Amino acid sequence: MREFELIDRLAERVGEAGVAGGERVMIGIGDDAAVTDPPGATVTSVDMIVEGVHFRRSTGSLREAGRKALATALSDIAAMGAEAGEAYVGLGVPPDLDQDGALDLLAGLADVAAETGTALVGGDVTAAPAIALAVTVVGHVESADAAVGRGGAAPGQVVCITGELGGAAAGLLLTERPELREEVDAEVADALVRRLNDPRPRLAAGAALARSGAAAMIDVSDGLGADAGHVARASEAWLTIDLGDVPVQEGVAEVASAAGLDAFDLAAGGGEDYELLAALAPDLVEDASAAVRETGAALSVIGRVSTGCGVELRATDGSVRPARGFEHRGTG
Amino acid sequence: MREFELIDRLAERVGEAGVAGGERVMIGIGDDAAVTDPPGATVTSVDMIVEGVHFRRSTGSLREAGRKALATALSDIAAMGAEAGEAYVGLGVPPDLDQDGALDLLAGLADVAAETGTALVGGDVTAAPAIALAVTVVGHVESADAAVGRGGAAPGQVVCITGELGGAAAGLLLTERPELREEVDAEVADALVRRLNDPRPRLAAGAALARSGAAAMIDVSDGLGADAGHVARASEAWLTIDLGDVPVQEGVAEVASAAGLDAFDLAAGGGEDYELLAALAPDLVEDASAAVRETGAALSVIGRVSTGCGVELRATDGSVRPARGFEHRGTG
Repeated sequence: MREFELIDRLAERVGEAGVAGGERVMIGIGDDAAVTDPPGATVTSVDMIVEGVHFRRSTGSLREAGRKALATALSDIAAMGAEAGEAYVGLGVPPDLDQDGALDLLAGLADVAAETGTALVGGDVTAAPAIALAVTVVGHVESADAAVGRGGAAPGQVVCITGELGGAAAGLLLTERPELREEVDAEVADALVRRLNDPRPRLAAGAALARSGAAAMIDVSDGLGADAGHVARASEAWLTIDLGDVPVQEGVAEVASAAGLDAFDLAAGGGEDYELLAALAPDLVEDASAAVRETGAALSVIGRVSTGCGVELRATDGSVRPARGFEHRGTG
Repeated sequence: MREFELIDRLAERVGEAGVAGGERVMIGIGDDAAVTDPPGATVTSVDMIVEGVHFRRSTGSLREAGRKALATALSDIAAMGAEAGEAYVGLGVPPDLDQDGALDLLAGLADVAAETGTALVGGDVTAAPAIALAVTVVGHVESADAAVGRGGAAPGQVVCITGELGGAAAGLLLTERPELREEVDAEVADALVRRLNDPRPRLAAGAALARSGAAAMIDVSDGLGADAGHVARASEAWLTIDLGDVPVQEGVAEVASAAGLDAFDLAAGGGEDYELLAALAPDLVEDASAAVRETGAALSVIGRVSTGCGVELRATDGSVRPARGFEHRGTG
């Protein structure tokens, strides 16, 4: 019977959250399926988050885990330039997670849903050996042509990035090696750890980049080098990134140095910053920067697209780094 | 790296399957999100299947588990009267599942996708302590009004069921107590076990019932009593079911009797038959029956809707049974 009770509580929780976007939802939680009325083309992504792989109850709250699960899923919607629409959640509940714990997870999801205008409209709850959260997110674009895929980068375009990189990787180092906190101010350290644990999907910036004519876009979840590689492969193009032009979050250099690394090891190899990497024509950069700035983020030109198929990360001393510094962790 | 390799193999596998429905898919697997162009309103459901809870590798093949995961998810789409559209799969892979095993699972999904015209267009693969399959399915209806929810049953309507019930519960008994196989012919026993392990979503019958004016519909996954209860609660109506009119699959009575039960314990309480329960106006039954018959299924009138809020299961001797005989197992 626990499944039915949890579904009822999930439905209540979602109702309480008063999430936006509901005007598209005709039938929500509690039927065989949700019914929505999409305004144009639909963008859909699924992310699976598993306890012990993507998070641990010992190092973070369940509410944070719920927040991060939806936020990282929405980052894929941002990377298509789409508006957040609906989310559907599959939740696996282990024997040692009580109802309050499950509701904490859902509260985290509901928080991010409310912050981003996402309607939580469907779910399935089942027993499982560990917490498993499968989040399917749906975004909306006017038409399929308006969605920005990975495959549109072409020679002559420039490569841009929103915000700053390296923060999540530095936050992970601080979490794993607390003695490194001595290298930076407490506020800076907190911001780095927050970057890791509470990522914010760049939905407004993604939509702005799409409107500004971005030809290809991806969110930086696997690391700058790896994600630039995904664009290169999908576009059959060569991406050259000048690491000296990559904006690095405050404190990253100090934490990296204390760990025997440099800032670009974290900024280019670390992943999980959930900034957006975009390729666009050079004459569009000025307007795109202004549009992204209005959403509260900076846009920086960090490289260029040429012929070939691959990625080159150029260090400030002119040396070329391997495109993948760190092993992939976390979610796509 | 395993995640990337598996995604590549998943993408290949999906490509090989040559699934139908692709005309709606603008960007498929391999980008941040899939882009689709829905023809009208959208119906979405998520089902989470976990090893050890919904299936065991010791008692069935991974291909069967994959088949069942997508089939049961699609049953929710059938229950809305919608056409199958797209499926998105989150896959948790434990250390003892090798790539061939994961591909067997996916082959099962791809089989059902091809059989039902569902396009497999997105996925996420991650490590997990046990196999976890989160299947999000999307169906399409002309408009939101065309989707048949659970809440439309009203006094004066009749209650109908497609096909026959009890087979999955009898199949489960046969799996758990092989000595019961002596009670029925081998072919009959095989058909009962197949009913449990290889359910077929009633997509064509669901669409036919929707077109024929079904006012409420649900798939019988939790059991006839429990699912009639879901309709009663959503509709604020009273459903009376005459158990003597419920079609029971061949062999169910014999297996039930040998287990000290009667056929209706399995047919009304067992669940997982994935037939469709619908409420509709009496004057629509003849046309609805003909339309459902064209899809290869029978439609039987098994009860009626009156005022109140609840369910009554009437046995042939006039006694009233509790609406829920068996504990809920399996997926919604």
